[in-house]
Amino acid sequence: MDYFADNDYFAIPLFVKETLKRAIAEDEGHGDVTSALLVPPERQAIAHIIAKEEFILAGIPFVKEVFRIIDEDLELKVFIKDGSIVKKADVIAEANGIARSLLLAERISLNILQRISGIATLTSLFVEKIKGLPAIIVDTRKTVPCMRFMEKYGVRIGGGANHRFNLSDGLLIKDNHIKIAGGIQRALELAGKAHHLMKIEIEVKNIDEFKEALYAGADIIMLDNMTTNEMAEAVKIRDLYCLGSKKRVLLEASGSVRLENIRAIAETGVDIISTGALTHSARAVDISMKFL
Amino acid sequence: MDYFADNDYFAIPLFVKETLKRAIAEDEGHGDVTSALLVPPERQAIAHIIAKEEFILAGIPFVKEVFRIIDEDLELKVFIKDGSIVKKADVIAEANGIARSLLLAERISLNILQRISGIATLTSLFVEKIKGLPAIIVDTRKTVPCMRFMEKYGVRIGGGANHRFNLSDGLLIKDNHIKIAGGIQRALELAGKAHHLMKIEIEVKNIDEFKEALYAGADIIMLDNMTTNEMAEAVKIRDLYCLGSKKRVLLEASGSVRLENIRAIAETGVDIISTGALTHSARAVDISMKFL
Amino acid sequence: MDYFADNDYFAIPLFVKETLKRAIAEDEGHGDVTSALLVPPERQAIAHIIAKEEFILAGIPFVKEVFRIIDEDLELKVFIKDGSIVKKADVIAEANGIARSLLLAERISLNILQRISGIATLTSLFVEKIKGLPAIIVDTRKTVPCMRFMEKYGVRIGGGANHRFNLSDGLLIKDNHIKIAGGIQRALELAGKAHHLMKIEIEVKNIDEFKEALYAGADIIMLDNMTTNEMAEAVKIRDLYCLGSKKRVLLEASGSVRLENIRAIAETGVDIISTGALTHSARAVDISMKFL
Amino acid sequence: MDYFADNDYFAIPLFVKETLKRAIAEDEGHGDVTSALLVPPERQAIAHIIAKEEFILAGIPFVKEVFRIIDEDLELKVFIKDGSIVKKADVIAEANGIARSLLLAERISLNILQRISGIATLTSLFVEKIKGLPAIIVDTRKTVPCMRFMEKYGVRIGGGANHRFNLSDGLLIKDNHIKIAGGIQRALELAGKAHHLMKIEIEVKNIDEFKEALYAGADIIMLDNMTTNEMAEAVKIRDLYCLGSKKRVLLEASGSVRLENIRAIAETGVDIISTGALTHSARAVDISMKFL
Amino acid sequence: MDYFADNDYFAIPLFVKETLKRAIAEDEGHGDVTSALLVPPERQAIAHIIAKEEFILAGIPFVKEVFRIIDEDLELKVFIKDGSIVKKADVIAEANGIARSLLLAERISLNILQRISGIATLTSLFVEKIKGLPAIIVDTRKTVPCMRFMEKYGVRIGGGANHRFNLSDGLLIKDNHIKIAGGIQRALELAGKAHHLMKIEIEVKNIDEFKEALYAGADIIMLDNMTTNEMAEAVKIRDLYCLGSKKRVLLEASGSVRLENIRAIAETGVDIISTGALTHSARAVDISMKFL
Amino acid sequence: MDYFADNDYFAIPLFVKETLKRAIAEDEGHGDVTSALLVPPERQAIAHIIAKEEFILAGIPFVKEVFRIIDEDLELKVFIKDGSIVKKADVIAEANGIARSLLLAERISLNILQRISGIATLTSLFVEKIKGLPAIIVDTRKTVPCMRFMEKYGVRIGGGANHRFNLSDGLLIKDNHIKIAGGIQRALELAGKAHHLMKIEIEVKNIDEFKEALYAGADIIMLDNMTTNEMAEAVKIRDLYCLGSKKRVLLEASGSVRLENIRAIAETGVDIISTGALTHSARAVDISMKFL
Repeated sequence: MDYFADNDYFAIPLFVKETLKRAIAEDEGHGDVTSALLVPPERQAIAHIIAKEEFILAGIPFVKEVFRIIDEDLELKVFIKDGSIVKKADVIAEANGIARSLLLAERISLNILQRISGIATLTSLFVEKIKGLPAIIVDTRKTVPCMRFMEKYGVRIGGGANHRFNLSDGLLIKDNHIKIAGGIQRALELAGKAHHLMKIEIEVKNIDEFKEALYAGADIIMLDNMTTNEMAEAVKIRDLYCLGSKKRVLLEASGSVRLENIRAIAETGVDIISTGALTHSARAVDISMKFL
Repeated sequence: MDYFADNDYFAIPLFVKETLKRAIAEDEGHGDVTSALLVPPERQAIAHIIAKEEFILAGIPFVKEVFRIIDEDLELKVFIKDGSIVKKADVIAEANGIARSLLLAERISLNILQRISGIATLTSLFVEKIKGLPAIIVDTRKTVPCMRFMEKYGVRIGGGANHRFNLSDGLLIKDNHIKIAGGIQRALELAGKAHHLMKIEIEVKNIDEFKEALYAGADIIMLDNMTTNEMAEAVKIRDLYCLGSKKRVLLEASGSVRLENIRAIAETGVDIISTGALTHSARAVDISMKFL
Repeated sequence: MDYFADNDYFAIPLFVKETLKRAIAEDEGHGDVTSALLVPPERQAIAHIIAKEEFILAGIPFVKEVFRIIDEDLELKVFIKDGSIVKKADVIAEANGIARSLLLAERISLNILQRISGIATLTSLFVEKIKGLPAIIVDTRKTVPCMRFMEKYGVRIGGGANHRFNLSDGLLIKDNHIKIAGGIQRALELAGKAHHLMKIEIEVKNIDEFKEALYAGADIIMLDNMTTNEMAEAVKIRDLYCLGSKKRVLLEASGSVRLENIRAIAETGVDIISTGALTHSARAVDISMKFL
Repeated sequence: MDYFADNDYFAIPLFVKETLKRAIAEDEGHGDVTSALLVPPERQAIAHIIAKEEFILAGIPFVKEVFRIIDEDLELKVFIKDGSIVKKADVIAEANGIARSLLLAERISLNILQRISGIATLTSLFVEKIKGLPAIIVDTRKTVPCMRFMEKYGVRIGGGANHRFNLSDGLLIKDNHIKIAGGIQRALELAGKAHHLMKIEIEVKNIDEFKEALYAGADIIMLDNMTTNEMAEAVKIRDLYCLGSKKRVLLEASGSVRLENIRAIAETGVDIISTGALTHSARAVDISMKFL
Repeated sequence: MDYFADNDYFAIPLFVKETLKRAIAEDEGHGDVTSALLVPPERQAIAHIIAKEEFILAGIPFVKEVFRIIDEDLELKVFIKDGSIVKKADVIAEANGIARSLLLAERISLNILQRISGIATLTSLFVEKIKGLPAIIVDTRKTVPCMRFMEKYGVRIGGGANHRFNLSDGLLIKDNHIKIAGGIQRALELAGKAHHLMKIEIEVKNIDEFKEALYAGADIIMLDNMTTNEMAEAVKIRDLYCLGSKKRVLLEASGSVRLENIRAIAETGVDIISTGALTHSARAVDISMKFL
Repeated sequence: MDYFADNDYFAIPLFVKETLKRAIAEDEGHGDVTSALLVPPERQAIAHIIAKEEFILAGIPFVKEVFRIIDEDLELKVFIKDGSIVKKADVIAEANGIARSLLLAERISLNILQRISGIATLTSLFVEKIKGLPAIIVDTRKTVPCMRFMEKYGVRIGGGANHRFNLSDGLLIKDNHIKIAGGIQRALELAGKAHHLMKIEIEVKNIDEFKEALYAGADIIMLDNMTTNEMAEAVKIRDLYCLGSKKRVLLEASGSVRLENIRAIAETGVDIISTGALTHSARAVDISMKFL
């Protein structure tokens, strides 16, 4: 269903590999003084990565890369696939190699796994709520600096989909753009000069704006902070307008999306529901590494 | 009370400046296609950074740096200082300059400000709980990759203090180290060879281990997942042991620290309470940028 | 007509700034030994950037950035705007500052200006050929390593438009993908799971494949190395198919596009004509820098 | 005949490896969305790199490095050596491995191979023209930013030789330097203080300047835009002057060198003919990658 | 006795790996022109790293890393361990592989080995002088830019210990800080807010200042440029003050430490003697590489 | 007399700027904890850089760059120029600005200034010894990793000259190359294919080898570890051989060059005397920074 869901043969982009390298540099400083004093350098160890609560696992490929960067000879046997539900006390993976390398990899790996799994888990809660309805749930650009690729991966693993990754790979006209361009119609005209592979999405705040955007040719219309009644009305207008057309204009609900109201939103018939909460409000799940 | 709390004349480390640069690269891709089409390049704009809820503000210095990297001619007038309580609808700052630059700076700046303020706010809730008691609340290394410096800044702004920043600037002997070294006594002996500016902290799980660590000369003892009764007992033993000594051994409570139980923990007389929740479980506060 | 055509207030992406820095490092080595010996360090100079033939100027913003990186105190007065026709002997710009800095900036600046202007000039020849017809001319990913952003800028300045910038910002299904996916229909189905801002383009080699792609819902169909007769037929089929639809499927002609045949191609009614020649076969125009 | 002509056991400089890494980052963005959706991650594939026209092959070592960076497990069997003439439809190499990795490597590899082979091919045309004459053909610093090492490799493979690589590894006094230094004699005096491994080359525009440079002790004299008559005269004067000397002053013809006039220039007896055309005016040759 | 003394299974920090990469880039420029012309690329060679005088060996792990970066297939058999005394003509190691790779690795490897061994050797002279006395000898931050980790490794190998590695991993209050803070007492109060893992060291210039620091609770007191009489007095005062205390305040002698006076200093009873000479005044030992 | 001797308007290469940045990162870690606690952020200070012994000053331009990187608002008034003799207690420069910035810049600046001045001072001792004789003294590649540009600057400031900076900017055939190439004659033949701006230097060990190299056309001959008698003989043979030639073959004495024997070596008539001691055996001079 998504790019590299249930395996890890995908190529982590070089930018992300560099981020992981920097995360290691951040944590190691000029070296782990405790392990240097207490752990003989040739000492081998085996350690388990263990779930301390129930959650959806996500982030294993990044952990593998961290291990690779730190010490190519570390082995990591993974027992549970990203996307699976992990139960408390489950052994997610077994790591094997030089003890100092394992101790260096420990915290960084857990920090990633805990956050990305936290995002997958929260996303799955949202997805569960709208089960049976056709709407998809997507993330936003409200991600932690340098973590976007990993966090959006977590969203996909949790059953969500991704909105654009950056300002280059999608065109989204927001209120500030409309204000500067001088209105919805003019904004859509100007946006029409984007490269031909791009759809054009525009944000509207009420039914009047919605109609203006629809008739002016937007591909996707973001309904920002509208009531479910307004959303339902917009869906009807769209359906009528697109009758007989090969391509339907898509409607995206946005703003104040919560676990409590997402089903009601989805029931209005919107195609897409976006919320920054998936990434900016996820808490880390609890995972630890135990040396055998 | 901390390094650079109520101003921003401190030097952001070069590592962090590089992280901010990478965060911009991550978001801009090969350029903001929407603004390129809709916003005339010479167009000036003024925008307000506005609180959408109540919280403790933290992260302004990093936002300033983001602005500087993107466009040296952007102006940022900040009306509220880091550490202040911000009310819903408060204007935190006013930005002024080329509209395209402002639009590029918007999301990255908000992502930082929302997360670091979230951490400060959550920290302040913990701090509030133990008001009047001498214990301090400290963070851990459970931070998002590459964000540690900024997140620990948020903790300080919220009234907490910092544990070590990386594996080099503090010596902390954990269970895995003890296992490999062959016992608490032996571990402390080996650690004694650290550079002379370092205190030695060791993790113990029960009163017996605690006594062994205390008598073997640890500077700080981390009481991991002990009951408050055990903690209180440890405090008593420590007080007796250090009677008449110039330097008191410090006790750090750790594990399962929550808003609900932190006061009880502090009341046992421990000196330090550490919790990863300050950073790994903070949710982003709500802040937006509005163009005038 | 395009992102930042007739001015330079756009933000050069950080990636491109880094490329320019590396270009300087490549050329300076450990310093310009000739100037170090012959040019007194405090010596000021004025130099003209002069056209040695007629062409379309493009690349000034990158030259400005090169000057800025080398020496912030260099001044560059630009007399002619990107996109203008420059005549032989025209003074494009006047540079002023420390002579050694100017001598260091000279070759790198000219290398960029000559290549990007060469691309703009070649593009304008193609554009000129199809004057009056609605088709647009677009580039490809056949660009020199690390130069894509600058080269695609040259295409826009020459009156062309851009195809996607990288593998992330557009979905284009080529023959190799179809082979692996197991047919056009299946490929389009799988591609339908892309993020909702993306149109889907697919490459076809004959009318049968074209129909399959059209009926299976492609947004854009690339007619690869078809005859103009076939293209004209495809246009007709498309027009019929999209009759009454709000969004028209776009047709892109690709393969063996030359100055000699581009008008015939455009006359078939295709919407887009793409050719790698704009970038990979442009020759550098002749520009020099003269010290007064 | 040159550094690493008919094999690839040379060490690509770290700077060039970094350029190749950046080229990959430039093309992959945050990942190849098309392949992510259409190509199963574990899918293996075999692909042929095929010539679509006749040319001199050059650039294989860089392609190997690109493959290595993208995926260490990719195999590349090369059937034709750099420097060989490749015929239309020849299979240059066979690549084997994870299909997604091959698809990522495809465009970058071809962009390099097409350009460097284009340079080798154009160079060989110039070299062919002066067959039997002792002059050598050299390149200039008129190369694309960050591509100099690779482009100069192409020149060598095509039978040319290299002029200096950067401003540090050769001393070349141009008209602007002479102007600032205050004359040819003075310029040569000042240049005499360069490190002792460096020859001194100076540019002159006519026979009078030539004589001044010759008598003042230049090692190499660049005859800039002189007529073939003047060049022949310069050669005679030089021959006379160096009679009986162990080391002959070298003469380099430069300016307006074309395929049409290069033989006439070489026949004047100059030692070196330099032209930026080898690099700045080469067009890419046509090469494709086909999946079997 | 120290982090990774007699083996090399420690992880060289990523920062140091990057420094080694840059050292290679610095030396290779755009390639070794001599070897490129004289050494066939496939030529294998064996070379010995040979001591040309007697010294303490240190730096092998860094040499291994240099070899790895240059060519993963190079073999390096090391016959003598870091920390051993090497005699003139001893073969330290044997390298085996592509001759060009060995020639590239030669100078960089020797430069490192000569300097780090020089530091270890000089350190061992100081250590030898105070044999039998309890004081330890430590280095300072007076190291060559980017070489600190390697130079401090040399100190440890020579039998010394390390002072702090950077401004983050130890708190040291110097005269300039005291001046700004407004006195010793106030300075120590402010420093008390450091993170709880840090000891506090303060510099004093005479007995009065010493007493003030001692009574105000410093953990370590640096006696800067005091006479040995003063040092002995300080030791006595300290001993009395700490009588019965679990933790003794440490005394560090600093300033004008030379081979001639170090034993007298150690005999005063100070715990630590620091001197920048270990790193800033070490001369390189003589080592060469011979091809068999 | 050299590139940028008595001023600092030269451009420090980007590589060196990056090295200085990394030196700062190395020393600051995640920030100066002492200053953060003791020095109010807005506190201004004035500090003097003071000589603690007599030496030749060198390195000011690099210190300026360090100041610029740390804090653009720091002022540095320099009272003494590089190349001047500094007396004990002389104030070299006065720095002015934010106290925390000054404290951060202090150690790095002094480390550079102490080392580069040490190299200039040692070089000047060698130069002094051969006063009145025509030979020049040059350095080698025996420099500390990443410090080559700065160290070679120190050599020039001390009155020496530079040998090549890296393996690309000069051709030097050593014994290992001769062995692989199969003899002196063959080595020189192969080297003759280097780019035409390069002289060819070759190392010989005795008079027979010397003659072979001379007659085979070497431009410079390095007399490695020969006696002064042999050197004198070589000079005579050379003089005879080059009689009447426009370009004289240069002779470079190398190996076991010490202050004690350098005059005797210079008196043999060799043109160049090279010694690694200038860089690898210089000790740091004593300089400090005092806050007023």
